[in-house]
Amino acid sequence: MSSRTTSFSVTHPQLSRRPSVSSRLSIAVSTAERGEVTGNNAPREQQIEEEIAEIKRYEDFTTIDWVQDAAQERLRRRTRRKRHARFDNGKVSWRYKLRESYDAAQGWIVVTLIGAAIGLNAAFLNIVTEWLSDIKMGYCTTAFYLNENFCCWGEDNGCDHWHRWTSFEPANYALYIMFATIFAFTSAVLVKSFAPYAAGSGISEIKCIIAGFVMKGFLGFWTLLIKSIALPLAIASGLSVGKEGPSVHYAVCTGNVISRMFDKYKRNASKTREILSACAAAGVGVAFGSPIGGVLFSLEEMSNYFPLKTMWRSYFCALVATAVLAAMNPFRTGQLVMFQVKYDRSWHFFETVPYIFIGIFGGLYGAFVIKWNLRAQAFRKKYLTKWAVLEATLLAMGTAIICYPNVFLRIDMSESMEILFLECEGTEDYQGLCDNDRRWSNIMSLTLATIIRIFLVIISYGCKVPAGIFVPSMAVGASFGRTVGIIMQAIYHAHPDSAFFAACQPDVPCITPGTYAFLGAAAALSGIMHITVSVVVIMFELTGALTYILPTMIVVGVTKAVSDLFGKGGIADRMIWFSGFPFLDNKEEHNFGVPVSTAMTNDVVAIPIHGMTLQSIEDLLKQPKYQGFPIVEDLTTRILVGYIGRTELRYAIDRLRRERSITISPEAKCNFSPAPALNSVTPITPTVTISNADYSLSSTSIDFSRYVDATPVTVHPRLPLETVMELFRKIGPRVILIEHHGRLCGLVTAKDCLRYQFKAEAAENPRDDHEIAEGYEKLWGVMNRVAGWFSGKVSSVSGGRIRLGGEAEDRRPLGRGNGNGQIMDGDEDVADIDGVELENR
Amino acid sequence: MSSRTTSFSVTHPQLSRRPSVSSRLSIAVSTAERGEVTGNNAPREQQIEEEIAEIKRYEDFTTIDWVQDAAQERLRRRTRRKRHARFDNGKVSWRYKLRESYDAAQGWIVVTLIGAAIGLNAAFLNIVTEWLSDIKMGYCTTAFYLNENFCCWGEDNGCDHWHRWTSFEPANYALYIMFATIFAFTSAVLVKSFAPYAAGSGISEIKCIIAGFVMKGFLGFWTLLIKSIALPLAIASGLSVGKEGPSVHYAVCTGNVISRMFDKYKRNASKTREILSACAAAGVGVAFGSPIGGVLFSLEEMSNYFPLKTMWRSYFCALVATAVLAAMNPFRTGQLVMFQVKYDRSWHFFETVPYIFIGIFGGLYGAFVIKWNLRAQAFRKKYLTKWAVLEATLLAMGTAIICYPNVFLRIDMSESMEILFLECEGTEDYQGLCDNDRRWSNIMSLTLATIIRIFLVIISYGCKVPAGIFVPSMAVGASFGRTVGIIMQAIYHAHPDSAFFAACQPDVPCITPGTYAFLGAAAALSGIMHITVSVVVIMFELTGALTYILPTMIVVGVTKAVSDLFGKGGIADRMIWFSGFPFLDNKEEHNFGVPVSTAMTNDVVAIPIHGMTLQSIEDLLKQPKYQGFPIVEDLTTRILVGYIGRTELRYAIDRLRRERSITISPEAKCNFSPAPALNSVTPITPTVTISNADYSLSSTSIDFSRYVDATPVTVHPRLPLETVMELFRKIGPRVILIEHHGRLCGLVTAKDCLRYQFKAEAAENPRDDHEIAEGYEKLWGVMNRVAGWFSGKVSSVSGGRIRLGGEAEDRRPLGRGNGNGQIMDGDEDVADIDGVELENR
Repeated sequence: MSSRTTSFSVTHPQLSRRPSVSSRLSIAVSTAERGEVTGNNAPREQQIEEEIAEIKRYEDFTTIDWVQDAAQERLRRRTRRKRHARFDNGKVSWRYKLRESYDAAQGWIVVTLIGAAIGLNAAFLNIVTEWLSDIKMGYCTTAFYLNENFCCWGEDNGCDHWHRWTSFEPANYALYIMFATIFAFTSAVLVKSFAPYAAGSGISEIKCIIAGFVMKGFLGFWTLLIKSIALPLAIASGLSVGKEGPSVHYAVCTGNVISRMFDKYKRNASKTREILSACAAAGVGVAFGSPIGGVLFSLEEMSNYFPLKTMWRSYFCALVATAVLAAMNPFRTGQLVMFQVKYDRSWHFFETVPYIFIGIFGGLYGAFVIKWNLRAQAFRKKYLTKWAVLEATLLAMGTAIICYPNVFLRIDMSESMEILFLECEGTEDYQGLCDNDRRWSNIMSLTLATIIRIFLVIISYGCKVPAGIFVPSMAVGASFGRTVGIIMQAIYHAHPDSAFFAACQPDVPCITPGTYAFLGAAAALSGIMHITVSVVVIMFELTGALTYILPTMIVVGVTKAVSDLFGKGGIADRMIWFSGFPFLDNKEEHNFGVPVSTAMTNDVVAIPIHGMTLQSIEDLLKQPKYQGFPIVEDLTTRILVGYIGRTELRYAIDRLRRERSITISPEAKCNFSPAPALNSVTPITPTVTISNADYSLSSTSIDFSRYVDATPVTVHPRLPLETVMELFRKIGPRVILIEHHGRLCGLVTAKDCLRYQFKAEAAENPRDDHEIAEGYEKLWGVMNRVAGWFSGKVSSVSGGRIRLGGEAEDRRPLGRGNGNGQIMDGDEDVADIDGVELENR
Repeated sequence: MSSRTTSFSVTHPQLSRRPSVSSRLSIAVSTAERGEVTGNNAPREQQIEEEIAEIKRYEDFTTIDWVQDAAQERLRRRTRRKRHARFDNGKVSWRYKLRESYDAAQGWIVVTLIGAAIGLNAAFLNIVTEWLSDIKMGYCTTAFYLNENFCCWGEDNGCDHWHRWTSFEPANYALYIMFATIFAFTSAVLVKSFAPYAAGSGISEIKCIIAGFVMKGFLGFWTLLIKSIALPLAIASGLSVGKEGPSVHYAVCTGNVISRMFDKYKRNASKTREILSACAAAGVGVAFGSPIGGVLFSLEEMSNYFPLKTMWRSYFCALVATAVLAAMNPFRTGQLVMFQVKYDRSWHFFETVPYIFIGIFGGLYGAFVIKWNLRAQAFRKKYLTKWAVLEATLLAMGTAIICYPNVFLRIDMSESMEILFLECEGTEDYQGLCDNDRRWSNIMSLTLATIIRIFLVIISYGCKVPAGIFVPSMAVGASFGRTVGIIMQAIYHAHPDSAFFAACQPDVPCITPGTYAFLGAAAALSGIMHITVSVVVIMFELTGALTYILPTMIVVGVTKAVSDLFGKGGIADRMIWFSGFPFLDNKEEHNFGVPVSTAMTNDVVAIPIHGMTLQSIEDLLKQPKYQGFPIVEDLTTRILVGYIGRTELRYAIDRLRRERSITISPEAKCNFSPAPALNSVTPITPTVTISNADYSLSSTSIDFSRYVDATPVTVHPRLPLETVMELFRKIGPRVILIEHHGRLCGLVTAKDCLRYQFKAEAAENPRDDHEIAEGYEKLWGVMNRVAGWFSGKVSSVSGGRIRLGGEAEDRRPLGRGNGNGQIMDGDEDVADIDGVELENR
């Protein structure tokens, strides 16, 4: 500790500028860097490591700084290495090597643990969901905790042990509705009371988090727990929501919770992102039983930066998770997903015509649902925020009422897909689906199912229970595809000798409607998420049929072409935009044609090297607006010398207070000069670039030098904005300073770029939201009246004992989040986002 | 043209500094930028476009500048848009829209064409290769151009139409050797005389090219043609070389040749790279019949930058290519690759033990082959460069002599893999491989095949015929895997009741040796290339069996772990390193702990804004050392104002000469000030950043302003070197200038970074090449003596009429390329690289 004590020497004001104090320090550091280690700097290195760990706690709703994180990780490794090297007379010891290999292996250990946890959780969820789904219809007489499949193990199409609740059909209907309502209510209450972040699918938010956004609690333990409990309830409630999106969320939560237990990831936010990408892959892997599909999904959809290392991690994590799931064998069929299927027949070239048709449907479906779902979300955000539980409950009730009569809507969506994918080979059948005589009634029923499901998807996705959109979309696509398939089959049966069907062999079934359903599911999934390669791989892994890879590619290709006509980005991207997260999309190519200076902030508050008082610094820190301050030589010339982050400055001051018992005068002058060598033109000596020196202080002068980043990313004011955005995306600094001939001219953040982009796009496509807003208002009026009437009825019937909800006037329309360019800032009212913000759980 | 003529006005020396001339110009441009278009700048925009097209012809063995390329593409689009907007009174017309959609669709059109061409070429190659391979053994009596399969269509295990050459076995042996030798000789001669770049696999070079390196002719038409002709010959010659690597090469050549025909790609080197990535995917896709595997290969191995757009392109290109190949159906079996296989049986958990063993073999195989192959390459480069044809011929002869006696080595490698993968279900068999009684002879034979093949791979890969290493490696893995499988089977048969085999069902074959062969192939492929996910997907697409995805993942995972122990990078990466291409690998994480200033060039030749004479500029240009020059305010202060590339400067001077009939005095002063607004601190007005103004000249003053890049990428001298390398990798400028407080301190290129890396690594692991060099020398001596003796014999037998080759003393050991850190520069003797450099074919 001696060297530090030295630098704490109280100097007189006139001596504080004396170079010796600070230069002695930096010499010590630079010699340490060169490996000429002296005895007493062991504590220093330890201290550096501690500080790195402590300072880099990012504030909520800020973005992480990839450049700094990487630099600190390197520094940490180097100091560690040096410390060990010293203990062993400069030689690398086996102990150091062991430690080093542990450090290297840590990533793999963490990933294995996470993968196993995800696999276990997935198996648990599958079992619970199936049981809950079946309990709506009946119960098992042998043991109440068995679902229909297990109850009737080995028997096809039901058995005697499995009882419907009553033999009176309307009572079954009522019970079905009741169960659905109770499940949804429970789910919504759990989410609302314990983890608001567990609502929805979470894909959009995770995308932003992986890109570097900080949302505390979103990936916390509570979210994980509640999501895992509420998800089976939500799905079993029959709401048109899927488990695939949420399964990504709980997988990523698992990853976050487990990786926090390891030092390496606790310290480094950007390293953790790698793990999160891997978890996303595992999440999709277990949800679809498709490990490679998961990796590609993580690559295509979740991660804006996906180096090979992350790919390997993802691959491994998905492998472990899938293997654990396979070992648990939750369906006892050896399948990982209910709708896994095997096709024996091949396809014919003429079938590309209906395939293209299905592809077009996929694109249109995606565009339609995205548009209307976003409107539904806007409406929900504006009027229904306070009524989340009621909304989910009513939705489930309505869904149950509508769906029960339709054979394809009544059952669980995964199950319905399993049925629709059927090849109709041998005896397998469900409700006469394979029966050619019932063709037209099947077509009617399927068409109805398609239309109702689309409507339900639009209003259900986004309600405040764990809810994904993958499986509902696939179910829509499957029912549509099966319709097309049955129609094709009908045409073939009507004109078997037509030239169009020349490729059909006489005695073999020519058209397999099940494959159309399968392709329809692929098309709808691709249409809603705007993903391509991952869909093909996922579908491929679902069937394992090489034969259908080309049709899937054709369908998905057509879907992508159609989707691209209708605007950019799948529903996840559009939700990001809608929610105003600071996310720079890497799918778009911009062509603004302006230099960065048009988007930058001109009036940057800079701190001069010398002369600011502690008081004024603290005043600056009180304003939440600034995330950091450029350091300039003086305020007139504004020659840029460095940058200091708000967190670092805060930490430095707090630490000062903590460690010094004497009071520091608020008038004490602060010194921010990064390092003495900096004033020469070519500082060749290797020095640590970030927070590299101890701080010395006197009662009248405080040295913050070591917290100053001497090499912030700077660009020329005339650099094209597109290049700057690329820098943000690919290199990932938090701010970029604009420097011209050494002088600071401005500062730009990713948010500034996005703001400019919003403005430019709004100017290009002016939009009139007036009518939509009016529509919302009208709809809300109708809903209010219905609710009022209903509430009145209930109240009068129950004699005033039951009052549904509060007063309608309680609502406070939230001003933001209608997609008009507000970007989330660290300083916003947190309650804006989702009603309740939880502590860092 | 009027505006340009204005700027050509001859001004007096004292007026040349008058701001009006240049400012008038830049005002014209900036108004144009703001859309306030005047009548007479239509030619200007056209001219800008022309210039972009013309200037950006990169010199050979340089790297492209992604930043500039992107900026120019944006500029080009903007000017085009404006031009069209003007013709239609500021409104966007349908004609512009049409043109715009054509521009957008162009990428897809190009990719479709390329995909189709690749598919056709692949089909052609498959057919020719098969015929050539079979002709070594016999001929078809019905038609000489049929191979054995087609000759005996519908019959298993040969037929009467297919004749062996003679009934006398030694004569067959001799004919086999003769054919092999002739094929190899023809192939080598073709390569040597017409397209030296067609030799080898080309994967390493393509990796560098996709990363931005320029190698003219490497992807040219001649390379494509010769590669397509010489490849079947080389494979049919029986050399232990595969067609997968070269198929990537010819695919990429196809892409390059076709995309050159389109304006968009002709102009833009970085856009072309996207197409090349897509072609690489298609190449692997057709080689393995695995389109998704191809995309992943392109992602994992070929491309260091793989945005989603490129992924979609790749996906589409691979789809088209595979579809065309499937439509051509070259094997008439519906299979895309000979060794496609289908497994019906499943695996048991206890089999993970042998799987892990196979995985370890894969890793060891990779490490061993990489090490020794690199030594063989070094030897080849040092001594055999002049004897390429002879070497390939002798190799083929030797291979034929060694391989004919072994049943697994005699046949084509694809065919042998097909046999080794067999499940042994039903009647299928080859040479008693499925016969349990011949187990031990099979094991012997397979072990021998494994060892010999490894040796042959080491010496064959890299010889001067088109040659890949994928399939040979897979063949090695397959024969090893099959050995393990047979041994496992033997153990099982010996102890069927052991607890270890408890999972086996009594009446079903428990161990399937074919699957072990399959996994062995995966392991060896992963071991040699260090790719993981793509191997799994490729193997998955080869079998289509979902069942074996988990075993493949386990095997490949183990292989990767083992490989990582033995050094970084697969054979392609190591070859890049060995050849000294300026390629920044993105797989490695560095931790140098030094600022960029340690790696930068200090004594940069800068050009002052004013005062340089034309003569001195031309003198500078004559030195090939400099690729560009920073522009500084004056040579004393060295305030950085811009950068001018060598190519741009050259172009500007040439153009000046061409357009001005009067001679320009060599003493004319050159002006390089980028733009007048630059001297104010915050130039907010939007101006074009690259080559934005016309040039004006007088007999005594020349204005090069418009060729100056006002916003080169600059960094602080103390920025960590790792961050700078990341900038090169991800942002891709050609040079980065080091600027401190506005002053130029140095310049750094990717090569400088690599040079530092080489040095740092050499310092860490000092290596003594002395022994190896001695070994080479000895080996060369032995070879010389053998050759001399043999040559003497031949000469004496033929009475001096035949003289084999020139004198041994002709050889001139090439000094470079032995992996000691030389990096290829634009100014090297081109003959160094491969003996002959062809014009831009």
